Amino acid sequence: MSRRTAPRPHADETRARIVDAALQALRSDGIAGASARAIARHGGFNQALIFYHFGSVEGLLVAVARRESERRSVLYAPALRRATSLPELVRVARHLHEEEFASGSVAALTQMLAGAARSEDLARGTWDALEPWTALVGETIERLIAGTPYQEVLPVGDLTSAVTALFLGIELYAGLDPDGGDSTLFTTMESVAALVDGMLRGAQPSGAGA
Amino acid sequence: MSRRTAPRPHADETRARIVDAALQALRSDGIAGASARAIARHGGFNQALIFYHFGSVEGLLVAVARRESERRSVLYAPALRRATSLPELVRVARHLHEEEFASGSVAALTQMLAGAARSEDLARGTWDALEPWTALVGETIERLIAGTPYQEVLPVGDLTSAVTALFLGIELYAGLDPDGGDSTLFTTMESVAALVDGMLRGAQPSGAGA
Repeated sequence: MSRRTAPRPHADETRARIVDAALQALRSDGIAGASARAIARHGGFNQALIFYHFGSVEGLLVAVARRESERRSVLYAPALRRATSLPELVRVARHLHEEEFASGSVAALTQMLAGAARSEDLARGTWDALEPWTALVGETIERLIAGTPYQEVLPVGDLTSAVTALFLGIELYAGLDPDGGDSTLFTTMESVAALVDGMLRGAQPSGAGA
Repeated sequence: MSRRTAPRPHADETRARIVDAALQALRSDGIAGASARAIARHGGFNQALIFYHFGSVEGLLVAVARRESERRSVLYAPALRRATSLPELVRVARHLHEEEFASGSVAALTQMLAGAARSEDLARGTWDALEPWTALVGETIERLIAGTPYQEVLPVGDLTSAVTALFLGIELYAGLDPDGGDSTLFTTMESVAALVDGMLRGAQPSGAGA
């Protein structure tokens, strides 16, 4: 046992501490460095605790993804539930982007995706972990297109996937951009959202059958 | 020298062979396994060749990204240049997605992004490597909005970033989906594209100032 291990802490606290350490390891060393040994070193505990509480390092990484996804859902649910137009939805997305980018969450997410590309368990776990988040986005989109002529033409599930994919893509793309050029991107998205919003409130979906 | 090293091959051939080995290493072992030693083992050459031809493993990975980006640009340029509507652009994207996903390019890209999140050189190199591709997408978008009332409202550069980010996001998101549920996603994108296309050809951009 490491000297920093507290005597018999409550299981939830221990689990939270292990999840914290894994997130820290992902941020600083990437997926390549997220071994049981490295995570235990980051948290100052014995690596056996990882296997006891999460079964495997992959199980722990899925728990990281789930906690982060839930945390974000709780944090942004009020703003998303207040959004009554597409441009407002984009503004929430911009705010979320700025917060999460600055906090290092995006860097951790990228590492998770890289791990998921090479492990089916991690892919499925990360997918399931996104559920609270995609449910929230889906609910918002459903509300925004309700009562418009597009309600019956556009499947909410696929629109939700598209919006989630776009947000994920922006995060990764902005991570590459040497100018961090995401602020003008979101400004453009707001313009596009305003255009589409005008359309949603306007004419018949004449183009949909094309 | 490994037994499989050919005697004094032409430098371009050697470079191509090293790039092939690096791509293979990325696909099979991920960014964590893309060391000089592992790449040399995949290609059956001496790892010193990597440093001689590319300066560093990062330099080699950037060369991989550039070659793959150029290859794809050449392959898809004719179809993109023929596209005269947004739905056609989405159909090219769907085709590209299916091809690249099946070939393992997406898995390699995900690994590059994970590396880029932890290395500024790799981030900048990957960003530059995407240039032939983003130039092609930009050119297509510019052509599609030319002559519409939106030409002056929407900056082509940001739209190009948004489309590139969306495509990147779809690739990564589809990689997580246990059902590989990207076919209905692209069908929805085609519907949305048809709607937006109808709008582009239609009314004044009344929503743009909102």
